[in-house]
Amino acid sequence: TQQVLSEPSRKAPRARPCRVSTADRKVRKGIMAYSLEDLLHKVQDILMLKDKPFSLVLEEDGTIVETEEYFQALAGDTVFMVLQKGQKWQPPSEQGNRYQL
Amino acid sequence: TQQVLSEPSRKAPRARPCRVSTADRKVRKGIMAYSLEDLLHKVQDILMLKDKPFSLVLEEDGTIVETEEYFQALAGDTVFMVLQKGQKWQPPSEQGNRYQL
Repeated sequence: TQQVLSEPSRKAPRARPCRVSTADRKVRKGIMAYSLEDLLHKVQDILMLKDKPFSLVLEEDGTIVETEEYFQALAGDTVFMVLQKGQKWQPPSEQGNRYQL
Repeated sequence: TQQVLSEPSRKAPRARPCRVSTADRKVRKGIMAYSLEDLLHKVQDILMLKDKPFSLVLEEDGTIVETEEYFQALAGDTVFMVLQKGQKWQPPSEQGNRYQL
């Protein structure tokens, strides 16, 4: 009997685990995504943002993630943050409520 | 005896992730770039700086990045800052408005 080995992922990239936080850092969800587009769709569903414009930034420093290439270059444990219209990235320390000391 | 010198780094360098900030630190974007030249072109497009002279410095301390070699030697998570004519690098603390609403 013959076993078909899994081919190296050429065409279809593998889904990768992403962590996505709300702007206030009160909710953080783990989401598997194949691409930035896929992640954006899932975020829209999961965080109930239908018809609400939002952007995705790095939770770490607010860097805007808007290209597929850049998304793919990020490490697996990257934490993203969703910013809705009017919301701004802020460092954790200034939010006060993150993990109180 | 003769020594063969190592060839200059292969033809196609890999694109690397760069973070690029505006001078006021209010916008930071993730951009993939193959070279300094490539990054400069993309910055021009993405930050809409057509026909506007600008230079690229390290966000950290204002070091001017103007050679390909130096660019290539920087770490992957380096944050660059775009300075347009008349703009000066300032440390984050003096901007006061960095993380303010």
